[in-house]
Amino acid sequence: MINILTEKIKKLEAPIVVGLDPTMKFVPEQIKKQAFAEYGETMQGAAEAIWQYNKGIVDAVCDLIPAVKPQIAMYEQFGVEGMTAFQKTVAYCKEKGLVVIGDIKRGDIGSTSDAYAVGHLGQAQVGDTMCRGFDLDFATVNPYLGSDGVKPFIEVCKKEKKGLFILVKTSNPSSGEFQDRLVLPEGSADASAARPLYEIVGEKVAEWAAEHMGETYSYIGAVVGATYPEMAKILRKIMPKSYILVPGYGAQGGKGKDLKPFFNEDGLGAIVNSSRGIIAAYQQEAYAKYGAEGYADAARAAVLAMKEDIRTGIF
Amino acid sequence: MINILTEKIKKLEAPIVVGLDPTMKFVPEQIKKQAFAEYGETMQGAAEAIWQYNKGIVDAVCDLIPAVKPQIAMYEQFGVEGMTAFQKTVAYCKEKGLVVIGDIKRGDIGSTSDAYAVGHLGQAQVGDTMCRGFDLDFATVNPYLGSDGVKPFIEVCKKEKKGLFILVKTSNPSSGEFQDRLVLPEGSADASAARPLYEIVGEKVAEWAAEHMGETYSYIGAVVGATYPEMAKILRKIMPKSYILVPGYGAQGGKGKDLKPFFNEDGLGAIVNSSRGIIAAYQQEAYAKYGAEGYADAARAAVLAMKEDIRTGIF
Repeated sequence: MINILTEKIKKLEAPIVVGLDPTMKFVPEQIKKQAFAEYGETMQGAAEAIWQYNKGIVDAVCDLIPAVKPQIAMYEQFGVEGMTAFQKTVAYCKEKGLVVIGDIKRGDIGSTSDAYAVGHLGQAQVGDTMCRGFDLDFATVNPYLGSDGVKPFIEVCKKEKKGLFILVKTSNPSSGEFQDRLVLPEGSADASAARPLYEIVGEKVAEWAAEHMGETYSYIGAVVGATYPEMAKILRKIMPKSYILVPGYGAQGGKGKDLKPFFNEDGLGAIVNSSRGIIAAYQQEAYAKYGAEGYADAARAAVLAMKEDIRTGIF
Repeated sequence: MINILTEKIKKLEAPIVVGLDPTMKFVPEQIKKQAFAEYGETMQGAAEAIWQYNKGIVDAVCDLIPAVKPQIAMYEQFGVEGMTAFQKTVAYCKEKGLVVIGDIKRGDIGSTSDAYAVGHLGQAQVGDTMCRGFDLDFATVNPYLGSDGVKPFIEVCKKEKKGLFILVKTSNPSSGEFQDRLVLPEGSADASAARPLYEIVGEKVAEWAAEHMGETYSYIGAVVGATYPEMAKILRKIMPKSYILVPGYGAQGGKGKDLKPFFNEDGLGAIVNSSRGIIAAYQQEAYAKYGAEGYADAARAAVLAMKEDIRTGIF
């Protein structure tokens, strides 16, 4: 799947992923009105609204981008009905030829991580039958539990030819609270050799990545926030074969010119996410002319602008 | 909710939580047969099987224990249908008077953590209506993203009088890979003052806990694995007001006598989880006489034995 993703990025000249993170305040009134008329102000109504909203955006941008990244929390907030909307969104995006990166940030002890991997990337055995659950192409994984929490995901990816992005340095303001803490080398008391935790995690990701290579890149990638370009410079070197999934562009403050350190010299190796900046573009002054009715066209215009901003920033 | 949990533990003399972590290999044949007859070897069939299996166990043990801890991954593995079984299980346990600790290990940037908190502990706004999703009493949270990933959970808990258990030192063999790494004090190069990351996280939990107190304990608790009693000794002191949720007892290797350091001198402050050891007791030699038909009675006998093992171990 990393080979397919890389090819798509090259062909479209767009190292871009659109974050399908629907919240009710982004969904245009006309869509909410129709969904609530049909299902009431219920979880089902909310799920229908976000699904229709997503569909409009996907239809408008699917020829421009290689991948989407639905953030599962935005669906889980609406309970089981929201999860159904998540599943429908994933299936629809795949139908449209998009690579789907599920931003699920799961991670647990071995047997539990295996269950997550099975549900989101693999197949569950039911009697003698194998059944697919959410069937993502990639998933994000939280590394706090260490190797035995990550390896079951890797195993399922190997079997299914899918991939992971492991959290290394996240985009949020307080990510440094634990991730930036300086860690002594193992078995040493040499404080001058201490390095931030995110580098230690990055090294582990590089190890896993080297063992699980696609053609030019590994199917084990990393998450590094657009808001930390200085750290990205170092992490890019530590993890040369990992694709970096870059959140935090746009609404969280990252800009095109900050993105250069995330890419390798081949112009590849990173894929930049924008969520609000695209899916709620119609609520921004720059795209106000599209109005709520034109939210999908506004999203398309915002993708084109992002593509240009990144191209200018990197090359 | 922490007050209710503490009261229940005292009344039942059972600082025990049963992990409702159903996998197909634990579910007795007769239950699978009936579920598959009705729904086929499908996700729906699997979901029906785990729900019926759970129901049997809950009915058999609900008068003995204060709480259950469904591990959501075991439901997610069966897709949306599995999530429906999760929701039914949570609702049924609450009907039976049990406190429900959802082992969901979520955690993300602020706005995303808020969506998780809303979906699992709070209420989602749909139009002018507030809707409840999974409606857990407690949830487990992954701290890797720092304060702004945890605080939205705390905010929802404040509003809903619910609680959290934050991962500090997990029970799995490779938990030390990152959690045990020695961290320098902030702004210092004094290697002799370096401490393991789990202590740093524990201190943060203690801070949050102090700000959000119930009557005698805080509604912000911690997860510390039964497999690491030496570390628990220190963490118990660092987080005096936090309940410790203790996984890793039984199948993962923890024993009653190892549990003393997890408790405070008042005999409270910890709640010990057993999953397989209870729900699949009928598959162990000690409870083989119950057979698959008697799986629920075997679970009851295993709860009674666990209660005794912990009482002997602690007091």
